[in-house]
Amino acid sequence: MSVALSDIVAALGGELLGDPALAMDGIAPLESAEPTHISFLANPRYRSQLASTRSGCVIVAPALRDEAAARGAALVTADPYLYFARLTQWWAARTRAALPAGVHPSAVVEEGAVVDPSARIEALAFVGAGAIVEADAVVGTQSHVGRGARVGAGSRLAPRVVLGERCTVGQRCILHSGVVVGADGFGFAPNQGRWEKIEQLGAVTMGDDVEIGANTCVDRGALGDTVIEDGVKLDNLIQVAHNVHIGAHTAIAGCVAIAGSTRIGRHCTIAGASSLVGHIELADHVHISACTLVTRSVRQPGRYSGSFPFDDNASWEKNAATLRQLHALRERVKALEKKTS
Amino acid sequence: MSVALSDIVAALGGELLGDPALAMDGIAPLESAEPTHISFLANPRYRSQLASTRSGCVIVAPALRDEAAARGAALVTADPYLYFARLTQWWAARTRAALPAGVHPSAVVEEGAVVDPSARIEALAFVGAGAIVEADAVVGTQSHVGRGARVGAGSRLAPRVVLGERCTVGQRCILHSGVVVGADGFGFAPNQGRWEKIEQLGAVTMGDDVEIGANTCVDRGALGDTVIEDGVKLDNLIQVAHNVHIGAHTAIAGCVAIAGSTRIGRHCTIAGASSLVGHIELADHVHISACTLVTRSVRQPGRYSGSFPFDDNASWEKNAATLRQLHALRERVKALEKKTS
Amino acid sequence: MSVALSDIVAALGGELLGDPALAMDGIAPLESAEPTHISFLANPRYRSQLASTRSGCVIVAPALRDEAAARGAALVTADPYLYFARLTQWWAARTRAALPAGVHPSAVVEEGAVVDPSARIEALAFVGAGAIVEADAVVGTQSHVGRGARVGAGSRLAPRVVLGERCTVGQRCILHSGVVVGADGFGFAPNQGRWEKIEQLGAVTMGDDVEIGANTCVDRGALGDTVIEDGVKLDNLIQVAHNVHIGAHTAIAGCVAIAGSTRIGRHCTIAGASSLVGHIELADHVHISACTLVTRSVRQPGRYSGSFPFDDNASWEKNAATLRQLHALRERVKALEKKTS
Repeated sequence: MSVALSDIVAALGGELLGDPALAMDGIAPLESAEPTHISFLANPRYRSQLASTRSGCVIVAPALRDEAAARGAALVTADPYLYFARLTQWWAARTRAALPAGVHPSAVVEEGAVVDPSARIEALAFVGAGAIVEADAVVGTQSHVGRGARVGAGSRLAPRVVLGERCTVGQRCILHSGVVVGADGFGFAPNQGRWEKIEQLGAVTMGDDVEIGANTCVDRGALGDTVIEDGVKLDNLIQVAHNVHIGAHTAIAGCVAIAGSTRIGRHCTIAGASSLVGHIELADHVHISACTLVTRSVRQPGRYSGSFPFDDNASWEKNAATLRQLHALRERVKALEKKTS
Repeated sequence: MSVALSDIVAALGGELLGDPALAMDGIAPLESAEPTHISFLANPRYRSQLASTRSGCVIVAPALRDEAAARGAALVTADPYLYFARLTQWWAARTRAALPAGVHPSAVVEEGAVVDPSARIEALAFVGAGAIVEADAVVGTQSHVGRGARVGAGSRLAPRVVLGERCTVGQRCILHSGVVVGADGFGFAPNQGRWEKIEQLGAVTMGDDVEIGANTCVDRGALGDTVIEDGVKLDNLIQVAHNVHIGAHTAIAGCVAIAGSTRIGRHCTIAGASSLVGHIELADHVHISACTLVTRSVRQPGRYSGSFPFDDNASWEKNAATLRQLHALRERVKALEKKTS
Repeated sequence: MSVALSDIVAALGGELLGDPALAMDGIAPLESAEPTHISFLANPRYRSQLASTRSGCVIVAPALRDEAAARGAALVTADPYLYFARLTQWWAARTRAALPAGVHPSAVVEEGAVVDPSARIEALAFVGAGAIVEADAVVGTQSHVGRGARVGAGSRLAPRVVLGERCTVGQRCILHSGVVVGADGFGFAPNQGRWEKIEQLGAVTMGDDVEIGANTCVDRGALGDTVIEDGVKLDNLIQVAHNVHIGAHTAIAGCVAIAGSTRIGRHCTIAGASSLVGHIELADHVHISACTLVTRSVRQPGRYSGSFPFDDNASWEKNAATLRQLHALRERVKALEKKTS
């Protein structure tokens, strides 16, 4: 399925340098692109690849206009990475099969569920009584929409998603396979050496344009709701405990664990494999590095880190062993300071 | 669905101060409660909220009886948190729809499976040959009960759970969505640079009153069984490897990884994102802090920790860089000590 | 189902010492074996168990021939652990029910899917248009094979697996329950405080003899493919981000997180709960210890580590507090050195 450069510019804008009729049949990174591929150069660090790439057309910023034009076709735009993102969206829309609306005969839709005629309920899916599936929404094969839950207009549940009872998803959200929204939060009262279950009576509320990665879990609130605001992006295998609140446009990478009732601000980023203890707050615009355990509230925007530096095993062993005597070492330094003062 | 305070006391006990006819329509935390909500005060730290809450009735310990009564209705009980837990259970039982027993027509129950007439097999579920589903048990929509598996009386598999072949679940257990019990343990013998599979011939045995969180995995044993004793509570996204043994009434928070053949005692707690290497033992009443890697057996009860302290990125960078020369630093201190002695 | 020792030797080779007619009905570890169990001794560390075990027959290396024979039947072989692995395979093949080929009536196979007559599509499974399921392959109950995907000959998808559109699985692979192959990679372009989705146009390509553990995720590539080479073994709850490349015969333990575009060599091992940042490379034969964050490329084979040593909480608190002043401590040592020089 090839496309002329002029078609791309017509759809997405930008200034085209080169032959508008040039046909492209794919998008590829600079280093592996063929002459029928379109590529982008967003990071000036990779500028040297401009000379060597075989790409048929490169998306560049104005500063690289002449350099790019000298080697072949180019698309000039203020933000090449954003342009690339939109190009992928346009490309996906062109190449994806348009699937019909309606309820697959193998799906189970309980009486009292409301499914918009423009929505699609795929094979072997379940939609419970009282659930609402709005216009143009998709409930993927083998997915589960619990009783009283709501899937907003244009949202898409991939195959094998669970949206629990009374949980709500806004508009244009994407929930990937294996996502579990609305399992019980982890709440128990100790009772003579046993654990007494605290029934989780809340739900999960999700804004618009949220995306949730594969096998990520968002637990329902104990009393109130767990809240995911607009535009939040969660990667795979993340744990969001009960009553967590994630502010709008925050992005969280894979394997992050967020304990109960913690409140994350807007426009934050949390890198992979980090953890946040419960009942703390992160201000807006806080950025957490990979593999960091956040143990107290962070009131100031900025970057925070806390990972152990890795090393060859022998070096690590020596340093780690010494670390266990670090406090004693400080006392020895103190003693030396006293002695020499 | 509102309820009189007298109904609560009739069901759960406690001493009621105030109007028994007062109607409550929800349970809420002190800080967000409305006059039709019942709240609890378990932690003396939050005592000051008693003055400001709008809650209609507060569950308190005897020590706070007068203070609570001075502001409105109160329920006095020895353990307010436990009372609250029981209240949530009572509330959930009142408000949850009673669903009918029986096998949904879209479910697949193989010949030779034994399903108690009081059990419920929900839509699109699968129950294999030789499996047993006991009285009042629920197999949720799109869940899978493998051949020869057993779901004990009153246990509930949420939607989209896998209980593998020959694995057994005790009574009154809850397995949340996405749980996988009985996948193969990770066992391979090296063979000239390749890995030869060790078939996992054991199963998983689970006691009574176990709860397992969303997307948690409990692998089957290699030869013997992986064992989860009575009353164990596992949060979401936990990995329990083959032949692990978890003692009764131990609670483990989200994203914990437990390697093969490790044995955890009774009444332990393991905080989120911690890991245990394989083939070690934890005594009873051991408590592991968040994000700790436990690398050897722990024979004494108590609390154990091992996370890197997080900091603003600049401070972390300086300390982490120095950490890599920690052993050398100790040698320098030694040299100084020699010099000044 | 018991078996004579002669049957085992006939199938798997090795030298039998003792009565060939001796009947075995199980495989068990030395310490718990009964007289009708066969056991193995691979690690010389456990040699002392040879005297005490009740096992009916022990698989040993030639060096232990006399010692083993002195106590009962023995199977002598160059590599007892490998022999044990093959014995488990043989045992499993003997005892597992042979299930019929064909498409279960409750499964949904779209028009245009190609299913080999020797393959088995289990209950409530879905196979999309254009997908190919090759000879002797199994698509487990409630599993999903996306449109245009391919399941190679002899491969097995356990119950409730998702293999996304256009993703391919080689021959003799095993994907355990809850696995999600081919969800979207986590890619977004920032746009005035919001995140613009980068559609993930690539797929996942998997070689032969790959095994993937429960609830592990392998995301599809952004432009090119995410690649898992032959013989790779992934444990449970692992995150493999878009465009990662894992070299042949590498084994990765549970809860590991691998960020985007990272390239892992062949014959590597990564222990549990470790993380790799994106866009780095690991050479062949690199071994990463548990709970290590790998933050830069590793060019040399060897073992690398980076976990915080755990301790009783009081000791940890003192050392961790000092760690936050580590850089200052070094400056103090420097000052002392100057003073005393």
